[in-house]
Amino acid sequence: MPLTANDPTRKSWLDVPANSDFPIQNIPFGVFLTRDDVITIGTRIGDTAIDLGAMHQLGYFKGIDLTDDLFLQDSLNDFIADGRKTWRLVRNRISDIFLHTSPGLRDDQEHRKKVLFSMEEIEMQLPVDVGDYTDFYASKEHATNVGSLFRDPENALLPNWLRIPIGYHGRSSSIVPSGTPVRRPIGQTKPGEDGIPGFGPSKLLDFELEMAFITTATNDLGKRVPIEEAEENIFGLVLFNDWSARDIQAWEYVPLGPFLGKNFASTISPWIVTLDALEPFRTAGPVQDPEPLPYLQQSDAKNFDIHLQAIIQPENGAENIVANSNFKYMYWSMSQQLAHHTVNGCNVRSGDMMGSGTISGPTKDSYGSMLELTWRGQNPLQLSDGSERKFINDDDTVILRGFCKNEDVRIGFGDCSGKVLPAN
Amino acid sequence: MPLTANDPTRKSWLDVPANSDFPIQNIPFGVFLTRDDVITIGTRIGDTAIDLGAMHQLGYFKGIDLTDDLFLQDSLNDFIADGRKTWRLVRNRISDIFLHTSPGLRDDQEHRKKVLFSMEEIEMQLPVDVGDYTDFYASKEHATNVGSLFRDPENALLPNWLRIPIGYHGRSSSIVPSGTPVRRPIGQTKPGEDGIPGFGPSKLLDFELEMAFITTATNDLGKRVPIEEAEENIFGLVLFNDWSARDIQAWEYVPLGPFLGKNFASTISPWIVTLDALEPFRTAGPVQDPEPLPYLQQSDAKNFDIHLQAIIQPENGAENIVANSNFKYMYWSMSQQLAHHTVNGCNVRSGDMMGSGTISGPTKDSYGSMLELTWRGQNPLQLSDGSERKFINDDDTVILRGFCKNEDVRIGFGDCSGKVLPAN
Repeated sequence: MPLTANDPTRKSWLDVPANSDFPIQNIPFGVFLTRDDVITIGTRIGDTAIDLGAMHQLGYFKGIDLTDDLFLQDSLNDFIADGRKTWRLVRNRISDIFLHTSPGLRDDQEHRKKVLFSMEEIEMQLPVDVGDYTDFYASKEHATNVGSLFRDPENALLPNWLRIPIGYHGRSSSIVPSGTPVRRPIGQTKPGEDGIPGFGPSKLLDFELEMAFITTATNDLGKRVPIEEAEENIFGLVLFNDWSARDIQAWEYVPLGPFLGKNFASTISPWIVTLDALEPFRTAGPVQDPEPLPYLQQSDAKNFDIHLQAIIQPENGAENIVANSNFKYMYWSMSQQLAHHTVNGCNVRSGDMMGSGTISGPTKDSYGSMLELTWRGQNPLQLSDGSERKFINDDDTVILRGFCKNEDVRIGFGDCSGKVLPAN
Repeated sequence: MPLTANDPTRKSWLDVPANSDFPIQNIPFGVFLTRDDVITIGTRIGDTAIDLGAMHQLGYFKGIDLTDDLFLQDSLNDFIADGRKTWRLVRNRISDIFLHTSPGLRDDQEHRKKVLFSMEEIEMQLPVDVGDYTDFYASKEHATNVGSLFRDPENALLPNWLRIPIGYHGRSSSIVPSGTPVRRPIGQTKPGEDGIPGFGPSKLLDFELEMAFITTATNDLGKRVPIEEAEENIFGLVLFNDWSARDIQAWEYVPLGPFLGKNFASTISPWIVTLDALEPFRTAGPVQDPEPLPYLQQSDAKNFDIHLQAIIQPENGAENIVANSNFKYMYWSMSQQLAHHTVNGCNVRSGDMMGSGTISGPTKDSYGSMLELTWRGQNPLQLSDGSERKFINDDDTVILRGFCKNEDVRIGFGDCSGKVLPAN
């Protein structure tokens, strides 16, 4: 099916500010609460939120096989479960309706009142009910940096890392949408000289600059997803801040992995940008040496060129860009991750979320966490207000941003933002 | 509220075979499909399944504040979210209705037809929609054995183990009810001399003898559950077989913990036995030295005396009891686990499941996995049909059983059973 919605020459009859993340070529999907306290599935063009539940009721999706209440739900899980053909039909139809040459909704004031909202009138929700959330560890630079800092600089990359897209299960319950405050966690830390563990608010609170992809229902228990079929099972991507308490993590993580050091909060950007919208930004990934085992071999350009930024904004202060990274640095692609995740027969469901792990690039300003940027606090960052940061302070807001850009179009994700509140 | 349903002198007008796991003092909760293809919440006395949805429609829960469709659901999540007071009112009411001296349902043939089913007429389902599943590692004997086998016998128990109820996040999607076949997983294993990882069906497929508790919604994100309030948030327990592929696990688990070596299947017994029903079997746990940090200190008898068995049944063969363990061996109690899980503000929801980790006792016949029972295959087990087992073979069925017993009453869990199918 042609991705007509990607046509870079298209313009919308809705206003799209210069440099917007949401031109008519994006058409992301999200869930919001309207001014009338109705929860609905929607999309966004420019700074206008569009109620797809209302559009469906008004007949704008006629001819596409959709259940009546598909968009009047508090999650995208059922829509995503309908599969890629349906996603494409709906996204193309939305593009057609909002094309500047299309009358219809454009010229129907009654319908416009029911369908269109300003961003101030709505409240973004979690877009999916996440059944399971998996976090990978797919940036070679990040794995090398963390191995150096937590273990042994001489053998920073463990022997399995170049063979396996290493991942682990995370916590679904504490995934929150952008804007939700994050409480500084309390926990145990390594014992001091008296041999008794420390206990109290984390002193080493960190962000992790990640992206996460959302799947449809891919396989029954006991079956696997071949790597060639992986991408058609990926609905789209969000920005993902995997908040981390480094002192809690360091004391607890051997041998079963991170737990309370990570599961107190993960913040996502609320609009899922479809893989289809990202198609023009496909690019090659890093060369993989040694060659992966056959079930992980993928010949096409398998990465996406998405600029990523991490920003610290102190209370009442200015934004400070502290990291510039890129999703293309991922050593293991999303397809490789999904093929690996299911090779043992583990079933993946609609709405499941898979994080990339921290995406660090090759240069020091491209590292995706404070742990790496300040090299565990040895090299504090200077902020524009004269203060410095080894890790994240109370009342700091951390913002992740991401966008793709070529000569024709810019596709972005909006903010993934969370303010740190003092420990209870 | 008095636990009248626990009265050991009570007898039911329903037949209860000698040595049944399900006397009128049990009254577990589950979800089943009836002969009429209706999904409902139910309980069980002896070998009779009882449709609580039908009973509610017929007015048997009058006077208890329940929503109309509370039992006509495909999971217990909403009922569990109603809290301990409701669980107790409902369980006591059921006990009263089925008490041998109670007419009413006993003498109403029309109602009995709507409410009562033989076990052959129903199909047990997963009792809860598991939002998040956490697995702990709470048996000192198991952690010591695994540390000896996987790492260093001289330092088998890691320094954090005696301080922290170590746990990690597991996979919710692959939790299946007893009776579901389990496909032998495929995956990568440690490289041989050529340096290339192995790939194929696991050669070291294992069971893990565990129990798991199910919670109500305990805390909002950022808050914690104090240890004194932990138990009132625990609805009940099931048997839990955390199937494990030791060769896949050994290659993948450093540094982020087990992943594909565990997430291909976990089998649970389908009836949740309430913590209330287990109250007569409360017992002290192991002495904890060093003293836990204050947020983990618990003065009462905090463990439960539940006999546990693991059984291997070869295709067309007899059952072989290969392990006799006990839930009371847990070093870290359920309350300590829940208090620890939430101390950082991680939110826990209704229907969440928390596994104990393998429960091994102090003697060699009480170890809860083949890894430990055969000491990684060094000492194969002899089965009654003359065959031997280092790990689990294709077509073997592994059954876990558990029960409590005193002079008056026996409370059990039914079977937690899964047959291993050859790899795809």
